[in-house]
Order: sequence, then C-alpha cells, then structure tokens
Amino acid sequence: MTDNQTDSNDKAKRHQERMQQRKEIVDAAIARADEERGVVIVLTGDGKGKSSSGFGTALRCLGHGYKVAIVQFIKGTWECGEKNFLTESVFRGASPQLEYFVMGTGFTWETQSAEQDKAAAEKVWEECEHVFRDPDIHLVLLDELTYMLNYKYLDKDRVIAAIQNRPRNQNVIITGRGAKKYLEDLADTFSEVKAVKHAFNAGVKAQKGIEW
Amino acid sequence: MTDNQTDSNDKAKRHQERMQQRKEIVDAAIARADEERGVVIVLTGDGKGKSSSGFGTALRCLGHGYKVAIVQFIKGTWECGEKNFLTESVFRGASPQLEYFVMGTGFTWETQSAEQDKAAAEKVWEECEHVFRDPDIHLVLLDELTYMLNYKYLDKDRVIAAIQNRPRNQNVIITGRGAKKYLEDLADTFSEVKAVKHAFNAGVKAQKGIEW
Repeated sequence: MTDNQTDSNDKAKRHQERMQQRKEIVDAAIARADEERGVVIVLTGDGKGKSSSGFGTALRCLGHGYKVAIVQFIKGTWECGEKNFLTESVFRGASPQLEYFVMGTGFTWETQSAEQDKAAAEKVWEECEHVFRDPDIHLVLLDELTYMLNYKYLDKDRVIAAIQNRPRNQNVIITGRGAKKYLEDLADTFSEVKAVKHAFNAGVKAQKGIEW
Repeated sequence: MTDNQTDSNDKAKRHQERMQQRKEIVDAAIARADEERGVVIVLTGDGKGKSSSGFGTALRCLGHGYKVAIVQFIKGTWECGEKNFLTESVFRGASPQLEYFVMGTGFTWETQSAEQDKAAAEKVWEECEHVFRDPDIHLVLLDELTYMLNYKYLDKDRVIAAIQNRPRNQNVIITGRGAKKYLEDLADTFSEVKAVKHAFNAGVKAQKGIEW
C-alpha cells in the first residue's frame, strides 16, 4: 500500500469511529425517550417560517393517513395557497382527513375594531372546540393563536383548559409571535424563530407562494 | 350616555387609532419593498420546525399552481409523511407540478461511510441541477442541505454558483442545522430556529406524523 492509500484508509476508519459514537449517542437518546403521548409544540419569534412549519407538519400527518384540524386565526382575508392546495387535493379526494376553520376578519390593523375581532375569534373558537374532544384527530394546528391571546380576544384560561384536557395522543401546534410564559409552560416543545435577516427589509416585495 | 358607555367608546376609539397607526406603518413598509425577484431563504438552528417550514412553503406554492422542486438530502431511508402525501395527491392528480429528488443513504451516522455518502450526495445534486436553469420552477427546496456542505459531501462553490445563477424569479429554501456565514451572505432571509424546550429531552418518544 502507498502512503496515500494508508492515509485514506485511516481517514475512513476515523470517520467510521466518529459516526459509530454518534450513532450510539443518538440510539441511547431514542431509547430513553419512551413516553408515548401527544405533545404541544409552540413556534414563536419574529422570524419567517412559523406558520409554514405548522402547515408542513399538517401535511406530514395527512401523508401518514391521520386526521388533522387546522384553525387559522389571521389570514382569513388573504388569498391562501395552503388552503387552495389542501381543499383541492384533500377535500376533493376520497379522504375526509381534514377539518378547516378560518377566522374571517384578517389582521387587527385592517379591521381596526377590537369588538369585531373579538367576536370573530370567539366564533371560530366555538366552532373548532369539539376537535379537542375527538381522539381521532391526530393534530390540531392553531395558526397565529398568540395574537388572539395577546390582544385578549380569546380567554387564555379557556384555551389552556381545552388543550390540557385534550385526548392523550392528540398533538397541538401553536404559532405566532410573542408567545408568553404560560404557553412555554404548556408546551412540550417550544421553538423561537429568530429573524437574522429578512428580504422584506432589503426592499424585496412580498411574493405569492412565499409570503402568502 | 352612562360613564361606562363613555369609557367603552373611548377605549374603542383608542384601539382604532393605534391600529390605524399600525396600518400606516405596515402599508409604508409594503410600499417601500418594491423589488420583484426570487429570494434565498435559509432556515437553520437547533430548534424543531425547519424542514416542516420548507415543506409548508412548498405546499403553499403548489396551492397557487406553481411548479416546485424538492430535494431531500437526508431522510431518504425514513418513511416520509410529506412524500406520501405529495406523491399520492400531486403525482396521481392531473397536475405535474412537482419534481422530487431524494438522496437514498439516510443519516451519515447510519451509513458510517463518508465516501458512500459523498457519492450519494453528488448523484442527487447532478440529478437536480437542471432545476436551477428552469424558470418555470418557482421554488426549489434544498432540505437538510447544510449537512452536505458542512461534511464537505458537496462542493460549496458549485452549490453557491448554481443558486446565484438561477432564474431571477426562482426562490430557494435551504434547511438544516449549522448554516455557515457564506449561507447567511447568500441568503435574503435567514431565520435561526432556537430550541427553547424539546419534548424529546423530557422523555417523550418521537412520533409518526410529528417527527417524521
């Protein structure tokens, strides 16, 4: 064997050893995590990607054949790519896997009426509340819920109670900026999306398909 | 009018004024952002939700009728909810909107061979490279690309060049932990997902539909 071949074999061996150690760490962590139950995931922060992440996970659940409920608290007045695709492909298909609830008033700085927003938020909450009693629903996505709580359009104790009393295997995803400490306490997984850089601030126009 | 009614009217008026101010700020920011072009979005950090976010945005683009290319660099050996749903609903439907590329070797600590991983990464990169010359593809999702770059399975200059020379209106999303400074420089939008809390660390088992 030449020196080069020996070097290359040594390198492959070191890589294999490092990856074997890594595998043992990963496998041990997987073995330790043995509690089977649904989780509450909160995605907050000022960065881009929170709602998209919730919709991506909903897609993944649908892909596995699970039932999903999506409750959209803000984008009701926007044209909405996710809804087009989900309704076109799932509602028209054979599978009634998806329940979809949308609050129809748009952003609170568009309506400019707290009373009107509050009534709309309460209406959609009442419509969707049964999903927290349905063990067949694997995932409930509460998209942009934080604003409803922070503006006090929804009573936080009522929301927390519905989530805490849900079926044991049901998962909940909550998205929106400014999630408060009580949501961190409620969450099993809490991710904060930090905007390091945003195209919008560099003068790039919001785009169909990317921003909405 | 009673005192209570006056208070309530004053409160509604103050809310309306605050929201009007907010609307003016939002509208002015929208007016300033007038450059129309595709963007590069990087989602990095150790928190949950990066790939899901990329898939959610892909879903949104599909919902608007755009063509999308998804290149998945790591989850090839996992059963994959997104792929089930996307292939079932889009490939079987009338619309050939989606191109899907998957690297077949799984996690690098599963194969434990850098050479094998490198060959697999290069193969999928060669297969997908034409999408960066196709102006009809509105979004390219490079899922878990950062690992390929950090392990040097793909040549970063080649990857950066393909992205920089892409059609003007094409968008690119890159996901994965540990995105380096050159990806921040390349990005228009760079979000870091921070894990404040994770169910897995509290002993909750990874779940179908949620984790994969």
